Amino acid sequence: MIKIGIVGASGYVGGELLRLLSNHENVEIKYATSNSHKNEKISRIHPDLYGLTDLRFSDRTPMEVAQDVDLIFLALPHGTSIKYVPDLIETGVNIIDMSADFRLKDPEKYPEWYGFEHNYPDLLKKFIYGMPELHRDQIKNAKYIATPGCIASSSIYSIAPFLSLSLNDNIINVDAKVGSSGSGSGLDESKIFSERFNSIRAYKPVHHRHTPEIEQELKYVSNKDIKIALSAHSVNMVRGILTTSSIYAMDDEIKLWSLLRDFYGNEKFVRLMMDKKSNYKYPDPKIVIGSNFADIGFAIDKYIKRIVSFGAIDNMIKGAAGNAIQSMNIMYKFNEYESLIMPSLFPV
Amino acid sequence: MIKIGIVGASGYVGGELLRLLSNHENVEIKYATSNSHKNEKISRIHPDLYGLTDLRFSDRTPMEVAQDVDLIFLALPHGTSIKYVPDLIETGVNIIDMSADFRLKDPEKYPEWYGFEHNYPDLLKKFIYGMPELHRDQIKNAKYIATPGCIASSSIYSIAPFLSLSLNDNIINVDAKVGSSGSGSGLDESKIFSERFNSIRAYKPVHHRHTPEIEQELKYVSNKDIKIALSAHSVNMVRGILTTSSIYAMDDEIKLWSLLRDFYGNEKFVRLMMDKKSNYKYPDPKIVIGSNFADIGFAIDKYIKRIVSFGAIDNMIKGAAGNAIQSMNIMYKFNEYESLIMPSLFPV
Amino acid sequence: MIKIGIVGASGYVGGELLRLLSNHENVEIKYATSNSHKNEKISRIHPDLYGLTDLRFSDRTPMEVAQDVDLIFLALPHGTSIKYVPDLIETGVNIIDMSADFRLKDPEKYPEWYGFEHNYPDLLKKFIYGMPELHRDQIKNAKYIATPGCIASSSIYSIAPFLSLSLNDNIINVDAKVGSSGSGSGLDESKIFSERFNSIRAYKPVHHRHTPEIEQELKYVSNKDIKIALSAHSVNMVRGILTTSSIYAMDDEIKLWSLLRDFYGNEKFVRLMMDKKSNYKYPDPKIVIGSNFADIGFAIDKYIKRIVSFGAIDNMIKGAAGNAIQSMNIMYKFNEYESLIMPSLFPV
Amino acid sequence: MIKIGIVGASGYVGGELLRLLSNHENVEIKYATSNSHKNEKISRIHPDLYGLTDLRFSDRTPMEVAQDVDLIFLALPHGTSIKYVPDLIETGVNIIDMSADFRLKDPEKYPEWYGFEHNYPDLLKKFIYGMPELHRDQIKNAKYIATPGCIASSSIYSIAPFLSLSLNDNIINVDAKVGSSGSGSGLDESKIFSERFNSIRAYKPVHHRHTPEIEQELKYVSNKDIKIALSAHSVNMVRGILTTSSIYAMDDEIKLWSLLRDFYGNEKFVRLMMDKKSNYKYPDPKIVIGSNFADIGFAIDKYIKRIVSFGAIDNMIKGAAGNAIQSMNIMYKFNEYESLIMPSLFPV
Repeated sequence: MIKIGIVGASGYVGGELLRLLSNHENVEIKYATSNSHKNEKISRIHPDLYGLTDLRFSDRTPMEVAQDVDLIFLALPHGTSIKYVPDLIETGVNIIDMSADFRLKDPEKYPEWYGFEHNYPDLLKKFIYGMPELHRDQIKNAKYIATPGCIASSSIYSIAPFLSLSLNDNIINVDAKVGSSGSGSGLDESKIFSERFNSIRAYKPVHHRHTPEIEQELKYVSNKDIKIALSAHSVNMVRGILTTSSIYAMDDEIKLWSLLRDFYGNEKFVRLMMDKKSNYKYPDPKIVIGSNFADIGFAIDKYIKRIVSFGAIDNMIKGAAGNAIQSMNIMYKFNEYESLIMPSLFPV
Repeated sequence: MIKIGIVGASGYVGGELLRLLSNHENVEIKYATSNSHKNEKISRIHPDLYGLTDLRFSDRTPMEVAQDVDLIFLALPHGTSIKYVPDLIETGVNIIDMSADFRLKDPEKYPEWYGFEHNYPDLLKKFIYGMPELHRDQIKNAKYIATPGCIASSSIYSIAPFLSLSLNDNIINVDAKVGSSGSGSGLDESKIFSERFNSIRAYKPVHHRHTPEIEQELKYVSNKDIKIALSAHSVNMVRGILTTSSIYAMDDEIKLWSLLRDFYGNEKFVRLMMDKKSNYKYPDPKIVIGSNFADIGFAIDKYIKRIVSFGAIDNMIKGAAGNAIQSMNIMYKFNEYESLIMPSLFPV
Repeated sequence: MIKIGIVGASGYVGGELLRLLSNHENVEIKYATSNSHKNEKISRIHPDLYGLTDLRFSDRTPMEVAQDVDLIFLALPHGTSIKYVPDLIETGVNIIDMSADFRLKDPEKYPEWYGFEHNYPDLLKKFIYGMPELHRDQIKNAKYIATPGCIASSSIYSIAPFLSLSLNDNIINVDAKVGSSGSGSGLDESKIFSERFNSIRAYKPVHHRHTPEIEQELKYVSNKDIKIALSAHSVNMVRGILTTSSIYAMDDEIKLWSLLRDFYGNEKFVRLMMDKKSNYKYPDPKIVIGSNFADIGFAIDKYIKRIVSFGAIDNMIKGAAGNAIQSMNIMYKFNEYESLIMPSLFPV
Repeated sequence: MIKIGIVGASGYVGGELLRLLSNHENVEIKYATSNSHKNEKISRIHPDLYGLTDLRFSDRTPMEVAQDVDLIFLALPHGTSIKYVPDLIETGVNIIDMSADFRLKDPEKYPEWYGFEHNYPDLLKKFIYGMPELHRDQIKNAKYIATPGCIASSSIYSIAPFLSLSLNDNIINVDAKVGSSGSGSGLDESKIFSERFNSIRAYKPVHHRHTPEIEQELKYVSNKDIKIALSAHSVNMVRGILTTSSIYAMDDEIKLWSLLRDFYGNEKFVRLMMDKKSNYKYPDPKIVIGSNFADIGFAIDKYIKRIVSFGAIDNMIKGAAGNAIQSMNIMYKFNEYESLIMPSLFPV
């Protein structure tokens, strides 16, 4: 049994950590902090937990939390984690950061993509990109995890296996469709229901911040310099991501399934969508919502000579809290699937 | 560890039993039968289970299933279970019936509300109405369970505690709003997405079949002859029920909360919605979806002199498979909460 | 051709007036005022009008608007119109008020239901309740119109014709389901998409402000003292209202249809939903969205001895701007249907 | 006043023609045919028209319809119109075909993309592609119109203006998100609400049939051989399309807006989405639903050196019935905007 603290626990990512960890056999949640809701019951903000916990939001600072816990989750906005991490590391606490502040190995990417100078290049080396399917061995020995971004996760899972093919173009076009939870619980008039229902909002059509982490990881698996042409849309649902990626390469169907099988082997949380008699022939967020699965599938476009590859995940789980917890389970030698082996909620 | 069979497992109720039981520590699912999908993988029809089971639909008859299992779940249409139950009982197998065929104690209600003569009045006595909060002691010793209907559950949970008040009218008006999963997976042109999205369909405005079971159970708890004026609407979502009930009685807020507290005591799966600072001041299906919770709350209408009582449940869980499994857990002395103690999926 | 001004034109009701009047042959929109968006193009806030108008929001006060127009629409919050109306009347301008400030004939209702003293009982007599089907003759000679509330409209339309029956109870239970646009465009964290999607929110379960205007109008048509037990829910859609009303009276179907036919005669905008072979057997918001229709239907509950009566309208049109414009057309002897005779947007 | 017939009027496209034409001053709808609903009131199937027409579906054959009308609309499945058109032409009737059977100039495309041999190459020459912004002059003198496909329309409108730029790649990636009405009113278990809600279904990820017509029209405007890499998804809404296109070319924002302004000039139904202070910064189906507008906008991706161009239309209007009616208005010298100049339904 380890003791943990969740900093920034009133947001959706913090809430998802709380939700998934509420049943974890090896974890005691000591603190869930919030500036805006201090001393309120967490079930006021996260009503899914009403009846399951009497915990209240703490107003402890991250340093105060660190004193009493083995592991700290930072569920803070980009550019905020970095303010706390250097001091936290001094305390010896283990850290799982949900933000992008320690995902990129190259500090020079930060000014371009996140708008701030990253002054801790040494720390970047210490953080492991928390995608178990790619970095399990490193995670086993990690003290510091940077949890991947949601669109990044869906993109990497669905593109990486194909990069051993000969590519006709190093640009891969990724079109992402994301539920509203991806944009957080903050208040903004464009987010009210009447303005947002029935909408397909191109909220980040170019220069999306997940671009460099996708490229970094694809380089890691393939040693190829891929460029990701990413456009992100917010769609008429709360949870779930679908990424549609155009990979300019060709091979036959058997070979492509083999690539996927070889790449993922016995990975429990990656599912290959092969059943053409199902209502769900290709990955679809509908059938992963509430689960830690990443569904992968593809279609072959002979006309264009491209592979259209799909990834579907629950952005809050496999795209955030799920991978964080899976990484924690690996770090601490818990059952890797603990808290994560639930079916999706279907139909919903 | 018991062996179970689910008859009629390709429908939504069957699927929900499979989904919830997939993690149950004391249950082995031996058979999941389907006439229309025999030999197909169950994950084709219930894609939430892909990656979690390789089970295929069996074409065994209920009697063939009964030979090999300890407990049989019948997830069949109303009027169909009754064809199998008499023979099944002969085999000694335990039965949890999801249909209405054995919910009503009075056989004379069947012609009026279900359109068929019920020729097994003795069997009606043997079945226990599977609502743990009302019948836990009987369930402990039961061999046969009739699982309550979904609207019935939400209605009973939210009305029963108030019946000790002095009523000015024995008619209680219940307005039900139900997600589309309540009408099953059958094919019908009125159910296609384009015809159903954005709709509020009064699919059963009068003479709803759950009426007599609600009245029966309210009589059971209060010894009062209540008449339920029920109107049921299908709304723009898949899961969840809200029932809004007008009880013509009055008392102050403290007294009413006391009634609820006394009635439900330590019931784990009933939550009293008292937090007026939450975004969810009254029960709302949104915050129970994916859980086995029944949320109860009320408002006092001094003008009309009525209590407006709300019940919110996930129609597939607390309104069907959840109560069935909770009853099974009680019957078999398992941990009553096994498979059922998850938070709702929030936000979704 | 008349000149009009819309005060408070950046809200949804103001926007709907602009939308519907954009094609009106006899109306010139001189001013559309907004405090919060002054000088901005109205198409920024009401993007449906982009390409159809270059009008900008004016920062004129109501009195400044009145100087230049024949008719002023007040699309202001309850309690705000009343601050301007006494002075506006001095200018001789005609007024259509969208708020509740002049709907009730009895000034004593205002403290109880709206929380303010109404100090202009004489003005209340001058305003006509702008429901053409009930008050057409008065509207013809009116200078001042109070436009009915949205839930009130659906309730009155669907209840009034049945009041000539002998009632067993003078309380009529009305359950209202309303789209999100009914709660306006204001900012509130409970309204963001992630918190509101898939929700059924009992936002006003008792003591809804439309109660007294429904009772007033039902008294007007029937001379009976009806009490309305109204509970209002916000549902998972943007436009539309369904009201489900329990009227404790009985008669046969032919008689009830006759009542409806007699009551509404040739009213163009009231449709009787009689086709039991349609996908839409009862009134359903889905099939009135975008139109000025009020759909009326019913079911007979022999068990309870009640009539369940349904009304469905687009809350923004027949429930607000549509009746306002229809009243204006009558006042000015325009074609009564001008701007209002469009089919609903189906399917949507 | 012309007399028209609509063949195949019980489908969604037929219904949209009826809906839009119900107010047209110069059109009398003589026949609306349906095989499956003959003699039924059209308002049973298209409930938006209840109260506006008493027309019933006719069982006349297309040839029988042609005898009595000036213009026939064929709202038939692909591969069906072609069976009737040769004979219809003999009667002298004018034809607007909603299917793809006469959209492609090159008959050799039909076996590849539609799976049938096209035996009427001469007729292909006689049909004009009914996109007024590109072919107005030809439409003026046309007798036969092939109405563009919905995804094709959104793609062409949003790509064509940029083709005068120097392209770095002749492949343009188009990701389409389409509402459920795009897949028609036919019955299919994958279309029922519970299976389709919250889904993003990649229903045609490669080899979409609109590909050749997009390429044909882009060649027409630019004389360039563009290849379209199209992937089509069905999303959680009924109406509307968004297409996201990656055009590998670069220029500055002023130049790109100039291209759009020059290309569309005074086209009434094309709107350039330039307001970065709006909630709708880029084209969004939400704000065109119910209108004949095509909204166009773009973002510049300096990293990838591409223009991300967006088109949003109501698939049933500008993507089908709207362009058909606009073409008819041009053919017959009616006011080109008649029946089409309504604002979108906002918010919905």
